[in-house]
Amino acid sequence: MSKVEHAKGQHDQYRESVAGRADVEDTPELVSYYEELDRLKAGALWTVANKIEPWQPKSESEAVLWRYRDLREHVLRSIDLVTPEKAGRRVIYLNNPGRRDVAAAVGWLYSGLQVMHPGEAASAHAHSASALRFIMEGQGAYTIVDGHKMTLGANDFVLTPNGTWHEHGVGAEGTTCIWQDGLDIPLVNAMEAGFYVVHPDLRQAVTHPVNDSTAKWGGAALRPQMGDWNKNYSPLFKYEWAPTYEALVNYARVTDGSPFDGVLMHYTNPITGGHVMPTIGASMQLLRPGEHTKAHRHTGSFMYQVCKGSGYSVIGGKRFDWTERDIFCVPSWAFHEHVNLSSSEDACLFCFNDLPVMESLGFYREEALAENGGYQPVLA
Amino acid sequence: MSKVEHAKGQHDQYRESVAGRADVEDTPELVSYYEELDRLKAGALWTVANKIEPWQPKSESEAVLWRYRDLREHVLRSIDLVTPEKAGRRVIYLNNPGRRDVAAAVGWLYSGLQVMHPGEAASAHAHSASALRFIMEGQGAYTIVDGHKMTLGANDFVLTPNGTWHEHGVGAEGTTCIWQDGLDIPLVNAMEAGFYVVHPDLRQAVTHPVNDSTAKWGGAALRPQMGDWNKNYSPLFKYEWAPTYEALVNYARVTDGSPFDGVLMHYTNPITGGHVMPTIGASMQLLRPGEHTKAHRHTGSFMYQVCKGSGYSVIGGKRFDWTERDIFCVPSWAFHEHVNLSSSEDACLFCFNDLPVMESLGFYREEALAENGGYQPVLA
Amino acid sequence: MSKVEHAKGQHDQYRESVAGRADVEDTPELVSYYEELDRLKAGALWTVANKIEPWQPKSESEAVLWRYRDLREHVLRSIDLVTPEKAGRRVIYLNNPGRRDVAAAVGWLYSGLQVMHPGEAASAHAHSASALRFIMEGQGAYTIVDGHKMTLGANDFVLTPNGTWHEHGVGAEGTTCIWQDGLDIPLVNAMEAGFYVVHPDLRQAVTHPVNDSTAKWGGAALRPQMGDWNKNYSPLFKYEWAPTYEALVNYARVTDGSPFDGVLMHYTNPITGGHVMPTIGASMQLLRPGEHTKAHRHTGSFMYQVCKGSGYSVIGGKRFDWTERDIFCVPSWAFHEHVNLSSSEDACLFCFNDLPVMESLGFYREEALAENGGYQPVLA
Amino acid sequence: MSKVEHAKGQHDQYRESVAGRADVEDTPELVSYYEELDRLKAGALWTVANKIEPWQPKSESEAVLWRYRDLREHVLRSIDLVTPEKAGRRVIYLNNPGRRDVAAAVGWLYSGLQVMHPGEAASAHAHSASALRFIMEGQGAYTIVDGHKMTLGANDFVLTPNGTWHEHGVGAEGTTCIWQDGLDIPLVNAMEAGFYVVHPDLRQAVTHPVNDSTAKWGGAALRPQMGDWNKNYSPLFKYEWAPTYEALVNYARVTDGSPFDGVLMHYTNPITGGHVMPTIGASMQLLRPGEHTKAHRHTGSFMYQVCKGSGYSVIGGKRFDWTERDIFCVPSWAFHEHVNLSSSEDACLFCFNDLPVMESLGFYREEALAENGGYQPVLA
Repeated sequence: MSKVEHAKGQHDQYRESVAGRADVEDTPELVSYYEELDRLKAGALWTVANKIEPWQPKSESEAVLWRYRDLREHVLRSIDLVTPEKAGRRVIYLNNPGRRDVAAAVGWLYSGLQVMHPGEAASAHAHSASALRFIMEGQGAYTIVDGHKMTLGANDFVLTPNGTWHEHGVGAEGTTCIWQDGLDIPLVNAMEAGFYVVHPDLRQAVTHPVNDSTAKWGGAALRPQMGDWNKNYSPLFKYEWAPTYEALVNYARVTDGSPFDGVLMHYTNPITGGHVMPTIGASMQLLRPGEHTKAHRHTGSFMYQVCKGSGYSVIGGKRFDWTERDIFCVPSWAFHEHVNLSSSEDACLFCFNDLPVMESLGFYREEALAENGGYQPVLA
Repeated sequence: MSKVEHAKGQHDQYRESVAGRADVEDTPELVSYYEELDRLKAGALWTVANKIEPWQPKSESEAVLWRYRDLREHVLRSIDLVTPEKAGRRVIYLNNPGRRDVAAAVGWLYSGLQVMHPGEAASAHAHSASALRFIMEGQGAYTIVDGHKMTLGANDFVLTPNGTWHEHGVGAEGTTCIWQDGLDIPLVNAMEAGFYVVHPDLRQAVTHPVNDSTAKWGGAALRPQMGDWNKNYSPLFKYEWAPTYEALVNYARVTDGSPFDGVLMHYTNPITGGHVMPTIGASMQLLRPGEHTKAHRHTGSFMYQVCKGSGYSVIGGKRFDWTERDIFCVPSWAFHEHVNLSSSEDACLFCFNDLPVMESLGFYREEALAENGGYQPVLA
Repeated sequence: MSKVEHAKGQHDQYRESVAGRADVEDTPELVSYYEELDRLKAGALWTVANKIEPWQPKSESEAVLWRYRDLREHVLRSIDLVTPEKAGRRVIYLNNPGRRDVAAAVGWLYSGLQVMHPGEAASAHAHSASALRFIMEGQGAYTIVDGHKMTLGANDFVLTPNGTWHEHGVGAEGTTCIWQDGLDIPLVNAMEAGFYVVHPDLRQAVTHPVNDSTAKWGGAALRPQMGDWNKNYSPLFKYEWAPTYEALVNYARVTDGSPFDGVLMHYTNPITGGHVMPTIGASMQLLRPGEHTKAHRHTGSFMYQVCKGSGYSVIGGKRFDWTERDIFCVPSWAFHEHVNLSSSEDACLFCFNDLPVMESLGFYREEALAENGGYQPVLA
Repeated sequence: MSKVEHAKGQHDQYRESVAGRADVEDTPELVSYYEELDRLKAGALWTVANKIEPWQPKSESEAVLWRYRDLREHVLRSIDLVTPEKAGRRVIYLNNPGRRDVAAAVGWLYSGLQVMHPGEAASAHAHSASALRFIMEGQGAYTIVDGHKMTLGANDFVLTPNGTWHEHGVGAEGTTCIWQDGLDIPLVNAMEAGFYVVHPDLRQAVTHPVNDSTAKWGGAALRPQMGDWNKNYSPLFKYEWAPTYEALVNYARVTDGSPFDGVLMHYTNPITGGHVMPTIGASMQLLRPGEHTKAHRHTGSFMYQVCKGSGYSVIGGKRFDWTERDIFCVPSWAFHEHVNLSSSEDACLFCFNDLPVMESLGFYREEALAENGGYQPVLA
């Protein structure tokens, strides 16, 4: 909302002289009337109508790119500064300048970088928030979700869905690991629906064969017979990098791709074919050598991590150069386009977003940039 | 979020000495570290983790009851103060003390009281927000939705769903009319998904027989053959009071009702059997003479209007007495119970809420009050 | 399939000299080959391909009209001839000449007329078949479904869904009652899925208030809060005539209706908005005074009962005159059109059919008659 | 239905002296009454009730095993006997002794073995029937579905869904190929819903990159962004053997499997997670070395092909020994169990069935064998 300061008692700062819009000038009688309404915990709609019913969305979030080379040293330094026991989790979170009050990276999405030493483990807990991890570096990381233990490597994508017991660690034989966390914590808080429980034993037992979720649910277009499932999230918890990248490369051979996104695949819940969790979706996209997508904008908030290659994106008319492991966001209704600067190598962008929310609430809308051949002029 | 002021630079105000929670004390080194992170648009999760991951929801909204006898005179006075042309719509909105920044009545729900003189009409527009009206008094009111005109009487419930052209008016032969508006404007804004369009002619044509929506879709458990429909909201736009009350009375004869809500029916989309709109649900409930429901709490935000009878509700331990046309809200996770004080007459409460949001995002949770026989002690 | 007699050993009776169709003439070598295949429980596809892959459906069923004045006396006579105890149920079933082997009235649908004296009751049972009743005459009839007792009057439509305990009777204070039964018994048998159980006590207890299903689920576009339901059929078991006819009349005021069906409404499951049972759908339609619908044809099998008025239908080019309580069928892919011969009164046709099957298996197809202004020439 | 011959005019052959069942003895008066009913195209339910409402299903189909070594020579011989042009398709179909009238292999499922020489191609057509192929031997086979060409190898599973243009062939560089066809032709005919069209050009153009369906939709739990799809069947047309077998082996490592089926996976439509086509489902199952599953029975008709290994199945108490490429069927409600006779190698069974029909119509029911430790006594 507008941060502009107004004279005390001013009520007509949102006037618009457009038919069908509120255009009421303050008068002493009206101001007095407004003050009476205020005492009744009420107000006159026409003083705020144009503010609360804008012509189109204007995001509170800024487009931001977080360079990994900047963040990494601080993330590593946290190892010396705090213990996992004291910190709960040793995480540096991304704090969008427009969303500091809710600790969001963009819109209602939280994101942070978490680091763990070999032999460390965070305590087990469960919460209403839906969570994911995307592995950035290191070996030996694992996650346990409701008794299912998964081993993790770079670019693997892992779910720790709403309501599940989950914990993370790095095996004693591993190396220091860093991953990106993504959660809907700000949304859960906004909807006043957040519950949090620490596991009574601080650790959960591993009750299934390691990586059983992938072995059971990771077949292509195959459903295990013994696979009853009635949760609102995917039973497949880990999406490994190798088959994902292979699928993208295969798909790239037979598609022109989207003019706006190149070759993009959504991670899905194999039970339904839909999004992996009810509030967070995710995708991996491949930009071919030299590809420069056209600009479009849509509602919803999107967090990107560069998994492969280097290039730049133009977001809201501003250029953001990126290379592997950099993270950036695209706020709602901001025009954006992506460029792979390599002439020989593809580039890959991991993304998580609130598309499931936008879709189930009927809020999704999309628009191509009509002017300038579909490319944004880049601001100086 | 906490409005408490802290010493400048303090980062450890959310510490909890509980295993699995963040408990890191500020040190000069850490504070300096936090400041460096801040410059990188980042932060240390452990400084905010306990704040953004609360043990359970604590609503920003207060329980409020708005007495109709207080509001009514102000609503009527607006007729003399502003024209519909200048005001857009002549509405007094309900402004929850905890939600002034987003002009919400409770949670992410907007509500207001609108008044129109005979012969007046508001201009036609469309917006992303989903809207409803509940008629409080007067004769001759009508609403037009996408060319479907509906005539309206007291306690009739009308939809003007997301994306539809709609306009309201009162016929020249009518009387001054007041109704309650309910919208998801704050939610639409929060999700940065709001679009607004004024109708190019400021008026739309009536292209169907008057009240055709009810004639076509208002049969019980009957679907018209020529009823193709692919929208995400109900094709039935008007739910009249008489059949609704009759259905409640019929149902009351064969049910004990809910211990927490008495005899309650949800208005539904007859195409799906589900909620009337993707972001707003509504219900009508009947409390039998002398009925005192047990207390429970659930996530989600609820706005009530008293259509019939008088009594009180205990919300978050506080008693709110109500009579016909009073409006009150129940914030998320607040315990609440309802009492019909009449020993001979039933009482009826209309309610609209964000249940469809809570359900589709997987955020709904419910709990009965275990103590004190299920009744809240009332605060003095 | 073809009933034409062929010379013994003839295998080429289905030849068609059309590119892409089988056209192989019998030779001694081939006939000998066919006989070898036969011993291996095999055959040559080209000997039957044109038979089993017809260009379009040709129904085994004939269009039939059963006059009530013919059937009624025989139905009543059964009272003297058999007891309900000996007969199980005292029913005269409708036996389509093309479907005698499966006791079907049309396609895979069974139908019969059942009669009961005051004070009689049939024993309780459950079966895989889905069943319905449509009341033709008499007072005091009732049905009990899983402990829910319903009282029944003329033109009321009642479900006794797949798997439910059900029984029928007429109260001692009633009159002799006749109703039409409709079931999917032939389909259940064809799919080899039929199970049958006699109630251990031969009678079930009434465990809910009488007519509670209608009181609870019969509200228009209203869902009772205490209405958990996870069956694949409607929780509303009785659809009464008065509100159904009123809904049709209301709908008729605002619609031109279908050119092929006039003003038609499908009975629905209020939980889903879909068909009442997984294998049988039902509808009621109103033909305005003098209305003559256009001819169309579609897949699926349809049984009609005339509830009101008189007129005729043209089915497959043949005219069938009908009056109240007459029953007729429309086989799959037969052109049909309906005429209300009254110039002042509407006519109403109840129909049950296998539309849910055709739709869920993807078998539904529809076509208007293109020639002759959309009306069939009537065969002499 | 019963094939037993009865004395002419006998109507009481289905009597049962069980309370709740029909038990009416023929009398001259009744027989005369039955004859009158017959003239009215009607009958007395009690004469057929016990026949058409059996206590449980008794399949018309026999359990049959077709040995590939028997069929193969006849299939190859057809090459010399008929041309594809004359035959339409050169197919030997499997003719269950109980289902000769509808040319079914079991229940309402058709199956045949088709053979093609290098350079041959069948003409393109479309039909209401849903079809699949399972490749048995040879190299160079291909199928084209709606312009999507797929190359095929042994144990690949291909869909040619309801309504699609499709054609098959073997490239000039290939070898003689044999595959199993599976279709729902008998069901389509029974439901009187079959339409058939020969492609106007007898050949369709290949309008997509070869094998694009697999490249686009064959990623595990990944949905291509440019993948709009609104058909009622899978957009993935080919399920290759290598990834299917790998998925089974992976799954076998983390599951005990089903006591009745071992390690079984259903082929799915990746858009919905459900069956591949609306009327035919398919699965691949792995029996571990020495595995002997327990006996159960369920409704529905099942066709098996042995892809790997050798062993036997006990169906309805009869032992059927099988080896690679043998085909056998399990009729509805027949007890069955499977045995892998190898102590070192796994065995794999491909299966197609009418499970989607049984499920969507609510007809599926399942029961384990309670006696004898869960194993059937084998009939001598």
